[in-house]
Amino acid sequence: MFETAEVGHAIDKETYEAEVPALREALLDAQYDVAQLKKFPVIILIGGVDGAGKGETVNLLNTWMDPRHVSTLAFGTPSDEERERPPMWRFWRALPPKGRVGIFFGSWYTQPILRRVVGGGKNDELDRDCQQIVRFESMLADEGALILKFWFHLSKERQRKRLKSLEKDPKTSWRVTKADWDHFACYDEFARVSERTLRQTGTSKAPWIVVEGEDARYRSLTVGKTILAALRARLDAAAAPAAPAAAPVVPEFPHVDELNVLRALDLTQALERKEYKDRLEEVQGRLNRISRKRKFKERSVVCVFEGNDAAGKGGTIRRLTEALDARSYQIIPVAAPTSEERAQPYLWRFWRHMPRLGRFTIFDRSWYGRVLVERVEGFCSEAEWARAYGEINDFESELAAHGSIVCKFWLAISDEEQLRRFEERQNTGFKRFKITEEDWRNRAKWPAYERAVCDMVERTSTEVAPWTLVPANDKYSARIHVLETICDRIERTL
Amino acid sequence: MFETAEVGHAIDKETYEAEVPALREALLDAQYDVAQLKKFPVIILIGGVDGAGKGETVNLLNTWMDPRHVSTLAFGTPSDEERERPPMWRFWRALPPKGRVGIFFGSWYTQPILRRVVGGGKNDELDRDCQQIVRFESMLADEGALILKFWFHLSKERQRKRLKSLEKDPKTSWRVTKADWDHFACYDEFARVSERTLRQTGTSKAPWIVVEGEDARYRSLTVGKTILAALRARLDAAAAPAAPAAAPVVPEFPHVDELNVLRALDLTQALERKEYKDRLEEVQGRLNRISRKRKFKERSVVCVFEGNDAAGKGGTIRRLTEALDARSYQIIPVAAPTSEERAQPYLWRFWRHMPRLGRFTIFDRSWYGRVLVERVEGFCSEAEWARAYGEINDFESELAAHGSIVCKFWLAISDEEQLRRFEERQNTGFKRFKITEEDWRNRAKWPAYERAVCDMVERTSTEVAPWTLVPANDKYSARIHVLETICDRIERTL
Repeated sequence: MFETAEVGHAIDKETYEAEVPALREALLDAQYDVAQLKKFPVIILIGGVDGAGKGETVNLLNTWMDPRHVSTLAFGTPSDEERERPPMWRFWRALPPKGRVGIFFGSWYTQPILRRVVGGGKNDELDRDCQQIVRFESMLADEGALILKFWFHLSKERQRKRLKSLEKDPKTSWRVTKADWDHFACYDEFARVSERTLRQTGTSKAPWIVVEGEDARYRSLTVGKTILAALRARLDAAAAPAAPAAAPVVPEFPHVDELNVLRALDLTQALERKEYKDRLEEVQGRLNRISRKRKFKERSVVCVFEGNDAAGKGGTIRRLTEALDARSYQIIPVAAPTSEERAQPYLWRFWRHMPRLGRFTIFDRSWYGRVLVERVEGFCSEAEWARAYGEINDFESELAAHGSIVCKFWLAISDEEQLRRFEERQNTGFKRFKITEEDWRNRAKWPAYERAVCDMVERTSTEVAPWTLVPANDKYSARIHVLETICDRIERTL
Repeated sequence: MFETAEVGHAIDKETYEAEVPALREALLDAQYDVAQLKKFPVIILIGGVDGAGKGETVNLLNTWMDPRHVSTLAFGTPSDEERERPPMWRFWRALPPKGRVGIFFGSWYTQPILRRVVGGGKNDELDRDCQQIVRFESMLADEGALILKFWFHLSKERQRKRLKSLEKDPKTSWRVTKADWDHFACYDEFARVSERTLRQTGTSKAPWIVVEGEDARYRSLTVGKTILAALRARLDAAAAPAAPAAAPVVPEFPHVDELNVLRALDLTQALERKEYKDRLEEVQGRLNRISRKRKFKERSVVCVFEGNDAAGKGGTIRRLTEALDARSYQIIPVAAPTSEERAQPYLWRFWRHMPRLGRFTIFDRSWYGRVLVERVEGFCSEAEWARAYGEINDFESELAAHGSIVCKFWLAISDEEQLRRFEERQNTGFKRFKITEEDWRNRAKWPAYERAVCDMVERTSTEVAPWTLVPANDKYSARIHVLETICDRIERTL
């Protein structure tokens, strides 16, 4: 892969100076079009061998483009706020919004490669990391991001010469340290691992562009022209009339009988008030003790509450939080996204709320909106909700891999019970705010929602983040069921 | 101040249980109205003596209200991201948006009081801290926040008895540590300092409510009823027709001659291209070296660029960033606020971008928009821009006190020069995006803008954050002027 970047490319000064003014102007022009259109973000990754011009290129791009619309994102030692979240959190929070250019100097490739080269990692792990990255970048691309990944290369011989010549000149000798020679000693291993990584992660959606780093003029022109061409192509595509809708991508699962996971639930189970009170107190005490354990400080809990309208999510959440110290949880009621959230990939607005260690984040509705209400109401395209299942599974795996305990609840009530509750709400003064026209409209779509819920459970109930279906016609038993499940999940993990 | 909270208030169980259901329902009701109206945030501060029920109250409020619209904000050891910004940054970023309730468990009072009681601070410092807090809370209140500050009190005797009785019971004795008795030893000093603090910071906009903490039922009812009454009063006020506009609050400064700071500028100064190139290279090198000094890693720089339209802000910023490592700066082009920003006090959207140590944040337009374009165009009320001068001065003092170097530039061009540049832009292909109808409209308001700029300089050029007025008819000299000023400011500080 690197052979073509060892041929000794070079551009003479005259050619360079003749080409640069027009290139800069065209780049600026394209950048302003991107900023004005605000339809997609531009993600530029800068990786490669030391001394091959990474830093110089980052600075150059900031000079050639309008730096007001560029964010340069460097990733040194993670801050404590970053360390307490899954590794991808720091990249999610750095993603440029639509219309902006984000230059990633260091990226999600840095750690996997380092782990393999110097951290004693195995190829298996590297391959798994690569697989994850491919899925992540594919999601970004599907969400509209333009991704350009540059890899700056320098042959081993060139690298050696570079260090030697820096060392010889008294003015630059300070720039060469023992660490540089130590790195150099790993050159072959680093090249092998990089090659393996690039090979697995170069996709049509997010290709690698390997650039020979030796000659600054060649390097700069190559990068500049690549970016310009990519921006223009994307802008042209955005201006073209939309392609006709793709054919359905989700094969319909044949329903050969009337049974499904929801209908299989026994909604008749119920608790007496007395037993409920006793068991509630018991399970709340249990949860409280668990949450104060020392070991829990190395974990976090992400709870997701979904369910039919009026299934009792709010009341259940309240019983849950009663057991916790108010400082240890955050409830995120999911409503329409803000403008900042709309300028980002779908999952961004959930990533931003991920808890630090020792804490709970409780989602009252969640990212599953995409495959429930957005699917049923047509708020997103079929392609969007169809790929959401996989994106969500990836997201939850990353949480789980970091030690987050992901508990997902579907609170299920029957058609008749919902009607009863709607009518009760309509007739009770202080509950009126809880019932709107929309609730009645949603109710009319019961079968479509039921279908969507079954698909959701089928596709996203995983070992690391299983769904718990909770019969909720009886509020008491539903609450106990939820709290006991959370306790069980945490205890099993600790 | 604490005497009324030592009288032995108590509520019997029957009364309590009779009152609570209606209180909870009314609280919920009021809370939903606040959430639906989305016109103001509710900020509840919880402070006071240990063991007087602070934590219990926080948990209780989360139970009584709908926790989905409540954020409980605790402040332990600052994270490294917080430590590298001014102390108030962590509170700014935690402020609840309009429509939400934020319960501050620990707040901007914690450190000032601790510094005085155990940190060897003096009364002078405490008083200065209090003064700052008063101004901060006054700003919050002016921005619409409903602020309720609860102080939980326990007499010395009660405190002693509490610790003794906890110690005696084997089931609770673990709860009393040596630290508790150490705290107790400071009781008198703590009471004195708290009293001094509360006296100075209890204002009509943000009053203190001192609550006797001994009896849980009394305490809970008092807090609940206070919050309910305050919510209702504010909601009623929001529903009432708006009061007639207040009379002008900014006395007009008489202009007895035609001279002002802008007209006094010598706009004729100019640099030859050759000299410019040499001096630019020199000053950029100087800035680069400064920014890599070890001592600079304990500082940060906040640059503000304001100026007439077409005065050359963008070009100047580019010459500035060319001298810096792209990883060390962030440029914030200030445009219309996002919806998340509109739900916060005016300065929130600038606070969120404050640099970590060793870095630059460069604002292309800034918080001064409030006293410039917003004032002239009537986008905010006179009361709002009139109080902005003081708020801005407070803001910049906090930055400076933390070690940030605040450099503010007004790039000034003449009426005729602006016309020339506008016409040039109109006629140059790739500059057309830079000129809009709005620019021409603004131009027609030249005198009003001139007036606003003079007022701004007059009121916000402070010792810690002075304005630099830059004659910018000649772009070369303007750029050199700006870069040299930044170098001078940093060098003088290091």
